[in-house]
Amino acid sequence: MRRHYFLDEYCIIAAERGKRPTDFKHGGTLDRSDPKTCPFCPGNEELTPQAVAVYTEDGIHADGEERVKNWWARSFLNLYPAMTPSPKPPTKEWVADFARGFHEVIVESPDHESDPSKFGPLDLERLVSVYKDRYIHYISQEGVEYVSIFKNWGRVAGASLSHTHTQLVALPLVPPVLIREMEAITSAPRCPYCSLVEREATSDRLIFENEGFVLIAPFCSMVPYETWIIPKKHASDLEGLDSGDLAQVLGEVLRRLDRLLSGPPYNYTIRQLPDRRYHLNIRIQPAISTMAGFEKNTGIFINTVPPERAASELREV
Amino acid sequence: MRRHYFLDEYCIIAAERGKRPTDFKHGGTLDRSDPKTCPFCPGNEELTPQAVAVYTEDGIHADGEERVKNWWARSFLNLYPAMTPSPKPPTKEWVADFARGFHEVIVESPDHESDPSKFGPLDLERLVSVYKDRYIHYISQEGVEYVSIFKNWGRVAGASLSHTHTQLVALPLVPPVLIREMEAITSAPRCPYCSLVEREATSDRLIFENEGFVLIAPFCSMVPYETWIIPKKHASDLEGLDSGDLAQVLGEVLRRLDRLLSGPPYNYTIRQLPDRRYHLNIRIQPAISTMAGFEKNTGIFINTVPPERAASELREV
Repeated sequence: MRRHYFLDEYCIIAAERGKRPTDFKHGGTLDRSDPKTCPFCPGNEELTPQAVAVYTEDGIHADGEERVKNWWARSFLNLYPAMTPSPKPPTKEWVADFARGFHEVIVESPDHESDPSKFGPLDLERLVSVYKDRYIHYISQEGVEYVSIFKNWGRVAGASLSHTHTQLVALPLVPPVLIREMEAITSAPRCPYCSLVEREATSDRLIFENEGFVLIAPFCSMVPYETWIIPKKHASDLEGLDSGDLAQVLGEVLRRLDRLLSGPPYNYTIRQLPDRRYHLNIRIQPAISTMAGFEKNTGIFINTVPPERAASELREV
Repeated sequence: MRRHYFLDEYCIIAAERGKRPTDFKHGGTLDRSDPKTCPFCPGNEELTPQAVAVYTEDGIHADGEERVKNWWARSFLNLYPAMTPSPKPPTKEWVADFARGFHEVIVESPDHESDPSKFGPLDLERLVSVYKDRYIHYISQEGVEYVSIFKNWGRVAGASLSHTHTQLVALPLVPPVLIREMEAITSAPRCPYCSLVEREATSDRLIFENEGFVLIAPFCSMVPYETWIIPKKHASDLEGLDSGDLAQVLGEVLRRLDRLLSGPPYNYTIRQLPDRRYHLNIRIQPAISTMAGFEKNTGIFINTVPPERAASELREV
């Protein structure tokens, strides 16, 4: 049983003897839809709401009556939003009266067949710069307290369309998990992420590093092959970060997971806060294990792959 | 956006228009293994460790060299345990030195084809009485602070063997989610579960009740068709409960879910503490939705079925 670096969270490492990366069966992500009817494909822009931001060679635009063409990324409000600027309360009881927000889809590539693990350096830099731009756009809006940016890759990981995309949900409150993190951070003598970066940089859980970032398998990994990207220099959100270094390490982890686990479904999520005390981190979790009754009952995750082994395999692949 | 009855937890109800119970696609639970090789079947008792408790017509026994036959339930230590009485630490750093425990499998029926939603009144009463017995056995052991009892039904819900069974994990600590609950409970003027039982008994989220229990769709449901069984009279754990009433309501919910959702995979988990201030509850969650990037990033669940609609459909089925 292992405890989180600085929170009251636990996981149980129960290594199944002899289980190898290829023993993790998953459906992959190959249920490709038809590009002719794909709402995220060039030519089908009318199938989506007007884009809030269209990223092209000559700058960032917004859709008007006519949809902007020749884009390398575009973001628009989700047709089936989890949060909207003006929700209708479905019940009169206990409704949080602040429950307003935004839910955006970011299509990061016009290529229907593209796969983030195959992205080149330019694609990755653009991806990170779009995240940064969308984050800054929403975090400055009145009433927005948190911006959740996450990618679901593959149907099992929650992607209902196969064309690569990322989602952004702007929330009117800081989620309780982030509040608990901030409580621990502010009561520590020093930023615990800064401490763990130093410590893990020389541990057997380090997978990759460049000037700006480390990529580690966290000591208390909740799922097999979980990894975290953490900036070496304290930074609370995307705004103050070097996009190039981040793009490189993101590319590294996606390629390594792709090769080691044969194109697994996964989620990655960005944790950040517009509070200088927070330390941004990105968590990548392959969706190759099941959250079952024990996890639902206790909040403690049983993980069959020790992070030291995951790191070793991800270093060598 | 809805807040939990008394905790700082949230969910987002984002009803997908027109989605009906039958629109929730799931693989069902029909990947039946061969009873000849099933370690949970009568005649194959030697394939499991010696049973700690074998429940038969003439009482409770323990396996010796010879395995006890003619049982209606038997429980033994898991061959692939998440917790053991004497774990080997895989790393010297940060290891919780109290991480000792037990992991048991409870086979609730000798019938390879049996399905808890088809259990008759006697099967259900036996099931509940075995849970009670196993709970009392472990919670009184030295070093055990929490006993997690949960059922995974169907492969997607985490069951690796199809023959019906329940798992029990005895932990050396109270899980953080329960600690947070207890903090909220002890700082409330009155048991919040007692309050919510009264309130929900007259709400449109009530599905079923008998003398001892209510079955509700909780206001802040994390997943579609989530339900809770709660005793009307304050009781902290299984020890002080009427097995008959509990068996009846458990049978009701399993049958109703089975009919409404065509034999869905699900988890149910028992929340209880040997602390008189706690109020036992049982949570049943169909495994028909995906925990995706947003949930992993924020801890907030997006649920496409309002609990009022879930309750109405479960009442009428």
